[in-house]
Amino acid sequence: MIKVGIVGGTGYTGVELLRILAAHPEAQLTVITSRKEDNLSVADMYPSLRKRVSLKFSSPDNADLTKCDVVFFATPHGVAMKAAPQLISAGVKVIDLAADFRLRDVTQFEQWYGMPHSCPDLLQEAAYGLPELNREAIKPARIIGNPGCYPTTIQLGFYPLLKAGIVDGSHLIADCKSGASGAGRKAEIGLLFSEINDNFKAYSASGHRHNPETLEQLQKMSSSPVGLIFTPHLVPMIRGMHSTLYARLNTSIDNKTLQSLFEAAYQHEAFVDVMPFGSHPETRSTRGSNTLRIALHRPDNGSTLIILVVQDNLMKGASGQAVQCMNLMFGLPETCGLALLPVSP
Amino acid sequence: MIKVGIVGGTGYTGVELLRILAAHPEAQLTVITSRKEDNLSVADMYPSLRKRVSLKFSSPDNADLTKCDVVFFATPHGVAMKAAPQLISAGVKVIDLAADFRLRDVTQFEQWYGMPHSCPDLLQEAAYGLPELNREAIKPARIIGNPGCYPTTIQLGFYPLLKAGIVDGSHLIADCKSGASGAGRKAEIGLLFSEINDNFKAYSASGHRHNPETLEQLQKMSSSPVGLIFTPHLVPMIRGMHSTLYARLNTSIDNKTLQSLFEAAYQHEAFVDVMPFGSHPETRSTRGSNTLRIALHRPDNGSTLIILVVQDNLMKGASGQAVQCMNLMFGLPETCGLALLPVSP
Amino acid sequence: MIKVGIVGGTGYTGVELLRILAAHPEAQLTVITSRKEDNLSVADMYPSLRKRVSLKFSSPDNADLTKCDVVFFATPHGVAMKAAPQLISAGVKVIDLAADFRLRDVTQFEQWYGMPHSCPDLLQEAAYGLPELNREAIKPARIIGNPGCYPTTIQLGFYPLLKAGIVDGSHLIADCKSGASGAGRKAEIGLLFSEINDNFKAYSASGHRHNPETLEQLQKMSSSPVGLIFTPHLVPMIRGMHSTLYARLNTSIDNKTLQSLFEAAYQHEAFVDVMPFGSHPETRSTRGSNTLRIALHRPDNGSTLIILVVQDNLMKGASGQAVQCMNLMFGLPETCGLALLPVSP
Amino acid sequence: MIKVGIVGGTGYTGVELLRILAAHPEAQLTVITSRKEDNLSVADMYPSLRKRVSLKFSSPDNADLTKCDVVFFATPHGVAMKAAPQLISAGVKVIDLAADFRLRDVTQFEQWYGMPHSCPDLLQEAAYGLPELNREAIKPARIIGNPGCYPTTIQLGFYPLLKAGIVDGSHLIADCKSGASGAGRKAEIGLLFSEINDNFKAYSASGHRHNPETLEQLQKMSSSPVGLIFTPHLVPMIRGMHSTLYARLNTSIDNKTLQSLFEAAYQHEAFVDVMPFGSHPETRSTRGSNTLRIALHRPDNGSTLIILVVQDNLMKGASGQAVQCMNLMFGLPETCGLALLPVSP
Repeated sequence: MIKVGIVGGTGYTGVELLRILAAHPEAQLTVITSRKEDNLSVADMYPSLRKRVSLKFSSPDNADLTKCDVVFFATPHGVAMKAAPQLISAGVKVIDLAADFRLRDVTQFEQWYGMPHSCPDLLQEAAYGLPELNREAIKPARIIGNPGCYPTTIQLGFYPLLKAGIVDGSHLIADCKSGASGAGRKAEIGLLFSEINDNFKAYSASGHRHNPETLEQLQKMSSSPVGLIFTPHLVPMIRGMHSTLYARLNTSIDNKTLQSLFEAAYQHEAFVDVMPFGSHPETRSTRGSNTLRIALHRPDNGSTLIILVVQDNLMKGASGQAVQCMNLMFGLPETCGLALLPVSP
Repeated sequence: MIKVGIVGGTGYTGVELLRILAAHPEAQLTVITSRKEDNLSVADMYPSLRKRVSLKFSSPDNADLTKCDVVFFATPHGVAMKAAPQLISAGVKVIDLAADFRLRDVTQFEQWYGMPHSCPDLLQEAAYGLPELNREAIKPARIIGNPGCYPTTIQLGFYPLLKAGIVDGSHLIADCKSGASGAGRKAEIGLLFSEINDNFKAYSASGHRHNPETLEQLQKMSSSPVGLIFTPHLVPMIRGMHSTLYARLNTSIDNKTLQSLFEAAYQHEAFVDVMPFGSHPETRSTRGSNTLRIALHRPDNGSTLIILVVQDNLMKGASGQAVQCMNLMFGLPETCGLALLPVSP
Repeated sequence: MIKVGIVGGTGYTGVELLRILAAHPEAQLTVITSRKEDNLSVADMYPSLRKRVSLKFSSPDNADLTKCDVVFFATPHGVAMKAAPQLISAGVKVIDLAADFRLRDVTQFEQWYGMPHSCPDLLQEAAYGLPELNREAIKPARIIGNPGCYPTTIQLGFYPLLKAGIVDGSHLIADCKSGASGAGRKAEIGLLFSEINDNFKAYSASGHRHNPETLEQLQKMSSSPVGLIFTPHLVPMIRGMHSTLYARLNTSIDNKTLQSLFEAAYQHEAFVDVMPFGSHPETRSTRGSNTLRIALHRPDNGSTLIILVVQDNLMKGASGQAVQCMNLMFGLPETCGLALLPVSP
Repeated sequence: MIKVGIVGGTGYTGVELLRILAAHPEAQLTVITSRKEDNLSVADMYPSLRKRVSLKFSSPDNADLTKCDVVFFATPHGVAMKAAPQLISAGVKVIDLAADFRLRDVTQFEQWYGMPHSCPDLLQEAAYGLPELNREAIKPARIIGNPGCYPTTIQLGFYPLLKAGIVDGSHLIADCKSGASGAGRKAEIGLLFSEINDNFKAYSASGHRHNPETLEQLQKMSSSPVGLIFTPHLVPMIRGMHSTLYARLNTSIDNKTLQSLFEAAYQHEAFVDVMPFGSHPETRSTRGSNTLRIALHRPDNGSTLIILVVQDNLMKGASGQAVQCMNLMFGLPETCGLALLPVSP
């Protein structure tokens, strides 16, 4: 059994980790920390876990995380990088669900997250935790930067095209829509039910933190410079993410070949589902599961390709992906504990 | 492995059965019928099941249900009673999620459902499928009338009180609220998103089909005549049911004793969670799971007791409960395949 | 033109006052205060008012409210009572949308709101602002305690019955459901979209602040002691309130007479709509309007009567009612500026 | 007073017309037809109109529409074109909210709507009812093709850019999101609450009927060939439309000049609100009103411009726009009866 610690278990990615790990056959929830909720039973805060999780929150000051085999950080940006060096040197693996170990470029990190990076050396060592594109680096890694939710959909959506070099990578567009849980469990006016329900809006349309992360990764797929316009939107739903991607073909190719390109790229992937050409994936078809679905459209058989990508932002977009990384790091089957079927309707 | 058939698998209780049974370690989905969708892959209708369920719908005319060990009817009222005699005589067990085998009183059935009962003898044999209150009758049964969603909450909420004889059973009130999936997957104007969202209303306040079913069962718990006012309401949410029950104490009793009464009644039940006195259970704490939660309130320590009961109407209120019955009928652990954790948020 | 001031215009009842008053033919928005948003244009905070409201927020310290004819307090409990004496002595009328002037019983106020009352003499003078039941006292009043949202529905629903003395007033039940805007625009975890959507729960089931207010008013309608069980619930919708009221008849009466009782009570009321016996009013039929709708049910023609009442909690339940009071206080037609049709769907 | 007829008043655009016209100072609701609901009181179908609209539905066979000054068709495609010739020859003006008179190109109409056009001569005469771009043609028109909801946002969003010739018009992208009421009040499975809520999806991504309409109009603004990729999505909200438009600048221009271009284009428009550069308009800021809001973004000051456009799809996207046309056709102030403030929250 893998002894698991969770730092910051009171947010949405934290409770989602608890939901997965409480039923994971090879994981043992060992420590969960929260400064505010010291000594509170986890099930008292999350009644959905009553009778299933008996753990209590510990203050970070008292918790001995070094007895864990792996520690997940479901914390705000900046927390994991402060604790990681000590854990790593104690032989504990670290998976950070925030941004501390996502960007290889320290300058970019410091610019977008407004803080200096406290362990740039560990940052260089960290593996980017997108198994479908980086599996071999994840397996032996001591520290994982778990991808952002938006970047996961954008990368998996553009990857087969950029790798094949058949689209103009310099003018990619990602029009993305997320459910409200992506913003976290924070007491902010803008996240209130009465502000979000029956409403739709874009945000950060002039620039969003996930852009540099995505660009850094997309650039690895292409030999020519990649450019990305990324517009996030807020959908009045709790879970779910839908990315509508636009790319211009730079070569003559038929739709069957295009479809094959995607099917071939993901044929061995348990969590990526390439739907028939012209399908419309719905976010609910992934709700509560670790599956990401992709479908292609090509209006009027013209030069613009539309790639539709959906996932559950708390699962493949966050906690599910993190556990997928853990499975790889500990030599378990990648799907271990992650075979949860979508809850629909 | 239990060979399972599903008749009418295109509705919400049908697809919920599929979600549970596809991951049930002792069940093998064998036949699923739909007149309209003959030969369509189940996963084409429900993309949430892609890569997980490979079954196709068969027309009822071609499907050989007699090769199954058990057949679930997730059909409109009146379908199961026509097919049951043949299946039963072929040794196939039947679990009906509609009302055909719920009411022991044929006259009541015919009055509320507007059709004659086609097999009143089987009706007398059928077991009412509420395991917590009728477990021993379910185990050997050949045919199960799976309880209505509302009646499940009302019965489990009033049971400890009526059994103890400490409330006035003649004037019980059940003010119940259900998510929209309870109305089924029917193309009706009243069920449209634009009709239900951002709206709240009561319906059938002058009389609802679940009233006679509930009364018939409540009466079994009490030696004096039971009377029930039952008001159902429609909540703009997909899943979830919340029943607010009111009963007048007819004796002097302290709150601790009241609480103990409920805890004792359900102490061995895996799917009933008695929360601390004064708690407010939320429907989301049961979403996607087979758990029902109960909490007691007693304003001003007066004579009126409030019992709050929540469940997922498609799980403990329908398909989860049906699989719980199946487990009992086939000698499996009652929780087999039903240990799904609630999806929250 | 009536010169209007609003204190605390950043909350939901504040912006609803702005929506009404910006189009009110006899009102002139003159001052609006907010400590936090000093000098911010109202339309910058509420883009729905762009091009229609040019006012800016002023800090309470700079704002001269004494130049107004009337000041609305859309503030937390405790604010109005501190400012009222000075305004009243300057000849400015005061309408408080919070609880400072609702309860005549100071002890009850102090117990439920946890603060001493700073002007108990003004409290005695204040009129309870429910025009349908207290019109003559409102007209000459200098200060109005605007009713709570729940109390409005409960009073108008029970009034014809209590006045006629035909129900057992000692055991009334009000099972009430409110949209989330009723909780105000406060940065609290419990009010987040991801906490409220697709969820339903009761709250304060053991006792709620609106209970003493309602009781005090209901008692005025009856010569015998009134008792009320009041259970509020939170509905995943923004606006709307639905109260399901239960009362036991203590006399023999037919349904036609019952219906007439209600129709007669409200026949001259512009904002109370008595629907046909057995109707199911929906909250959306009042969305954005000042109308409250009522319908009666009597299951099995028995002794229990169900009264269904709906309103928009921000309109008849708060800001609409406050403007209705203002109209009365200034000799305007009661419907002036309040003829807004419900927005449906 | 203008005598108004409505054909097909039972759908969402129909009831929205009723909401507007019931309070319109110069309109008199005279006839409303529905084949199914003959002789039913309008307020019985739409309780939101109780006490405000006393009209009854008439069967189209009995209704004398020729006594009206203007008739709105809130009907499925194909109905208006059959009735229009007779009405026009009787001197009655016609405003069609469906597609019969939108496309000047008959071949396109017949291809996308799957029916022959029954009055191609009237089609040539019809004015396209987008006042901001076609005001002078609307004023004297006898027949109006009211624009589709999506096309309204796309045209007003791209217009200043195409007119100025500063973007590459051959590769425009419109990523559009609509609330569910846009699909109409039809009894279809795909429109059920349980299918749409807590879900997000694209639809018709390979080609949608609004594309040829939009293209036909956009082409009028540009001397070079226009190309448009248009991807509609369904948002779990009732009302509201958000279009995210992408265009590539083909010239060097600063942001201030860009902003001025938009402000100048719409400076005299009562219903178009150009927000400050970099704003994020929200659909709720238009809910229930006839206002459309626009804001510009230019990530990294690069070559791609993002134009965000929001409106209420039932108002500026349908019924509000139709009444705006009526006002123009009858010489009324354009805002007459349309000064309704948005309902927010």
